[in-house]
Amino acid sequence: MPRILRINTRTKEYRFEEQGEYAGLGGRALTSRLVNKEVPANCHPLSGENKLVFAGGVLAGSSAANSGRASVGAKSPLTGGIKESNSGGLFAHKLPKLDIHAIVLEDKPEADAPLQTLFISKDKVEFRDAGDIAGMNTYPAHDKLLEEYGDKLVAAMIGPSGEYCGKASTIQFTDPYKRPARSAGRGGMGAVMGSKRIKALVLDPEVNEKVTAADPEAFKTARKDWVNVLTGHPVTSQGLPGFGTAVLVNIINEAGALPTKNFRFGQYDKAADISGEKIAETIEARGGKTKEGCHVGCVIQCSQQYNDKDGNYLTSGFEYETVWAMGAACLIDDIDQIAQMDRICDDKGVDTIEMGNTIAVAMEGGIIPWGDGEAAIDLLSKIGTGDHLGRIIANGVDFAGGAFGVDRLPTVKGQSLPAYDPRAVKGVGVTYATTPMGGDHTAGYAVCQNVLKVGGEIDGHKKEGNVEVSKNLQIATAAIDSLGLCLFVAFAVLDDENGVQAMCDVVAAHTGLKFTADEFIALGVNCLKDELEFNKRAGFTDEDDQLPRFFSTEKLPPHDVEWDFSAQEMQGAKV
Amino acid sequence: MPRILRINTRTKEYRFEEQGEYAGLGGRALTSRLVNKEVPANCHPLSGENKLVFAGGVLAGSSAANSGRASVGAKSPLTGGIKESNSGGLFAHKLPKLDIHAIVLEDKPEADAPLQTLFISKDKVEFRDAGDIAGMNTYPAHDKLLEEYGDKLVAAMIGPSGEYCGKASTIQFTDPYKRPARSAGRGGMGAVMGSKRIKALVLDPEVNEKVTAADPEAFKTARKDWVNVLTGHPVTSQGLPGFGTAVLVNIINEAGALPTKNFRFGQYDKAADISGEKIAETIEARGGKTKEGCHVGCVIQCSQQYNDKDGNYLTSGFEYETVWAMGAACLIDDIDQIAQMDRICDDKGVDTIEMGNTIAVAMEGGIIPWGDGEAAIDLLSKIGTGDHLGRIIANGVDFAGGAFGVDRLPTVKGQSLPAYDPRAVKGVGVTYATTPMGGDHTAGYAVCQNVLKVGGEIDGHKKEGNVEVSKNLQIATAAIDSLGLCLFVAFAVLDDENGVQAMCDVVAAHTGLKFTADEFIALGVNCLKDELEFNKRAGFTDEDDQLPRFFSTEKLPPHDVEWDFSAQEMQGAKV
Repeated sequence: MPRILRINTRTKEYRFEEQGEYAGLGGRALTSRLVNKEVPANCHPLSGENKLVFAGGVLAGSSAANSGRASVGAKSPLTGGIKESNSGGLFAHKLPKLDIHAIVLEDKPEADAPLQTLFISKDKVEFRDAGDIAGMNTYPAHDKLLEEYGDKLVAAMIGPSGEYCGKASTIQFTDPYKRPARSAGRGGMGAVMGSKRIKALVLDPEVNEKVTAADPEAFKTARKDWVNVLTGHPVTSQGLPGFGTAVLVNIINEAGALPTKNFRFGQYDKAADISGEKIAETIEARGGKTKEGCHVGCVIQCSQQYNDKDGNYLTSGFEYETVWAMGAACLIDDIDQIAQMDRICDDKGVDTIEMGNTIAVAMEGGIIPWGDGEAAIDLLSKIGTGDHLGRIIANGVDFAGGAFGVDRLPTVKGQSLPAYDPRAVKGVGVTYATTPMGGDHTAGYAVCQNVLKVGGEIDGHKKEGNVEVSKNLQIATAAIDSLGLCLFVAFAVLDDENGVQAMCDVVAAHTGLKFTADEFIALGVNCLKDELEFNKRAGFTDEDDQLPRFFSTEKLPPHDVEWDFSAQEMQGAKV
Repeated sequence: MPRILRINTRTKEYRFEEQGEYAGLGGRALTSRLVNKEVPANCHPLSGENKLVFAGGVLAGSSAANSGRASVGAKSPLTGGIKESNSGGLFAHKLPKLDIHAIVLEDKPEADAPLQTLFISKDKVEFRDAGDIAGMNTYPAHDKLLEEYGDKLVAAMIGPSGEYCGKASTIQFTDPYKRPARSAGRGGMGAVMGSKRIKALVLDPEVNEKVTAADPEAFKTARKDWVNVLTGHPVTSQGLPGFGTAVLVNIINEAGALPTKNFRFGQYDKAADISGEKIAETIEARGGKTKEGCHVGCVIQCSQQYNDKDGNYLTSGFEYETVWAMGAACLIDDIDQIAQMDRICDDKGVDTIEMGNTIAVAMEGGIIPWGDGEAAIDLLSKIGTGDHLGRIIANGVDFAGGAFGVDRLPTVKGQSLPAYDPRAVKGVGVTYATTPMGGDHTAGYAVCQNVLKVGGEIDGHKKEGNVEVSKNLQIATAAIDSLGLCLFVAFAVLDDENGVQAMCDVVAAHTGLKFTADEFIALGVNCLKDELEFNKRAGFTDEDDQLPRFFSTEKLPPHDVEWDFSAQEMQGAKV
């Protein structure tokens, strides 16, 4: 059974351990259990007492479709609570090939210790001086690693923001196209890595042990059924591969739920200029690619390659939430500027959702004008430089609000809200308020039921049913994140009567253990319990399960809907 | 009965109201009751829903010794909880002379609205354009107001830090020597005033109605007894007037409790160079003044006038905590540099305790070298300028920690700890942890019992008795703050068997209402209940009643004492 690798970043000691009490867990369930058990809830997130955990899901290493998502967990510098941040890339599937189930970075050296690259092989770890890539943006630093380790490179790394512990810092992962374009974006996991003075993890390219299912025959059958479920649903087989997640720009705008000018309006008159349709058209005209998977084994292919006007690669993983954050939230309507901002965020190693909202706050505070894309690019470019304004931006919305004296801050538990106005999509609003992750849409994506009419239909303007749907989605999501599956499988699983069975069969065949809908739900529930327990010990109460007050006091045009849930009314969304 | 004046800073409407449900309350009891009743606990502190309350104590306007302290209350931008910040100056005694009991600033205009000066007279309020003093430091701005309003000026104002809503911003008050040298320092009240776009409050110099006691004869006698209590105790009659509060530098250093180099050591080898004795010697050599009162009617006279090398006025109100924060905390041993930093803080309008600790964090993060006084002066000087580093500094310790990636942050509930290491003075440590004010020594000054042997003797290195003493002191302090008395009266009241009676007699004679030790205690208990209730609704839990973990994991030299209280063990210190 793959082992847990613990690395002490201060003493440079390491050990490979049996899974022990963590056996049977993967992905988010594993990172959250370990953080809850081993990290003092009241420690400073940048202290040596925090631990940074990398884990693939239960299905990591298998050939099950869309099972290669990686989880990164720690106490979050952004929220002060527990965090799991989820990413594509090659990392998750590679770990079991080194006979490793999870990597835990512990302790930390002095703040001025030189940055290190951790070279991780099957039975040893080397601390290698990272002086040649220290301070570098992730794309050029990743190119250096490619030169050194070759084309089979599988790395996780931080950018200049993580190096100086900006609270919005990401960890960037190698994607299947030799780019560091996939992000564990939310909650500042890159700052925790930076505090431990680790610039990059490199997984030994030369070791690639074969991972076999516990029941290879059953797996073969289950795997096929599973692919059929995913390729049989219109969202996962047409919408997402056709236009990427940005297909949502027009849909959410049409629904009056596209937060515009720092959550003042529900529609953006320039939405068409930044839509998925516009992006797809631009990509095709410039010889990019409209479909790519973020990891090997993906059959949905919602990523893309976006080229600049000269036809050169600019960015990928260009998500709806990024386009919204840099676009409608800031009144920026130039898709090329938005794409450039996405690239800068990946390069500096900062979360695009947090950055878009932070730029809006800078606009709110008069630091740069509304809608000025060039000024926004300039602001992001200051991150990781000697300019202290960059330090302010790299720390996200609440921090920038403090620096600029702005009180209109769309955050929950310190993390900024994504691309769905909670007043018009109340199910996702309940998720924002109650998930232990802080303001987050993926944790319980009720946009399905409120807008897309997938998995049922619940009015997003009304209260009825939205606490319940958020709870059920939060459980299902925690389980999906623990299996290592891409969240988008949920579209198909929710709508296909064979979906849950096919998913469970794949897991059972891979692990050789009983896995039915009951185990799936228990996996999610127990994961959430770990997270809520940690947050409680960290000082969170029901009072923290609230949206900023302006959502309750201002009506959202065009539907003039308000936020009308009290914290108490939403407690039912927690397990 | 003096009225409550409510001023809407957005609409520019105002009204004078009867005291109503707030009758009988003064100072902190009044500000905390009003904030708890009227401010939504989960509002943003810089939003229009927050209210900024100015109030003198129950004894304001009277000639009782040391009864002229002012209270400023609001939801704190620094702690996120309720706040009362206490100051000397002429403001408190002046209010009843305008027949005003308290002033409440409500709502707020647009963020780019021009700054205003509020001219407040007996029956009217004028919003006057503050363009001529906008952006100015408080000393020159105060000089401008003196020119305009004459020598009888009584003002409260913010500096450039408050104008841009730095979370460590003070409100500066006119002292008896025509200087804006008294601060409501802690908790960022100046940022709340800045968010409401008010640069200064000016109390009409031409109105000065006589305030008479309810029972003038009884008051005359009680007043004399009260003076005798204060002038009869060695601390209030010799120690404090002789050397100011900085008399504590040597005493606390000797006790091994002077937090040195960001709370790493309990003694500073250069303590003598920054001691009260050294300050008094320097003041005398330069023709300054070693004794001054912070308000009319003070018989303790712990303030002073500190001149520079050329004999020109530099600063006053040069407190022990300031000297410690700029000195031992940062390893700066030049008393002139420290005095200059004190002046800059008053001028920019920032809290000296928060700033000293923030500079130590900047040193921790490698921004400037340890012990470099010139660099520290330069850093403080950036506040209120276009340099974004100034915005980081003006937001205090936790904020600077975020910006500089530092995890060694000596704060409780977001407010930095003062000049007594909690490991060696555990009674004050319990206060730091449990007071609703955040890290604060004045809220329950167990230094008396732990070090000075005033009001009893309790070992500051051990747990025994320290929860109880902190609780009792928190209650007494809340009552003293509500009466408008200077906290230092406690030295005499604690030790003199006639102290409590004399104090109560003064209050009863002034108000004409029964006031015994029971009413005194009830005043304090009810005030604390208001504060704890607000904080609970704002999301604080018992888990927030803790010191940063490094106090529990690192022993403090030279006595090698640790912090060993759990949050639960300290709950008994709360009413």
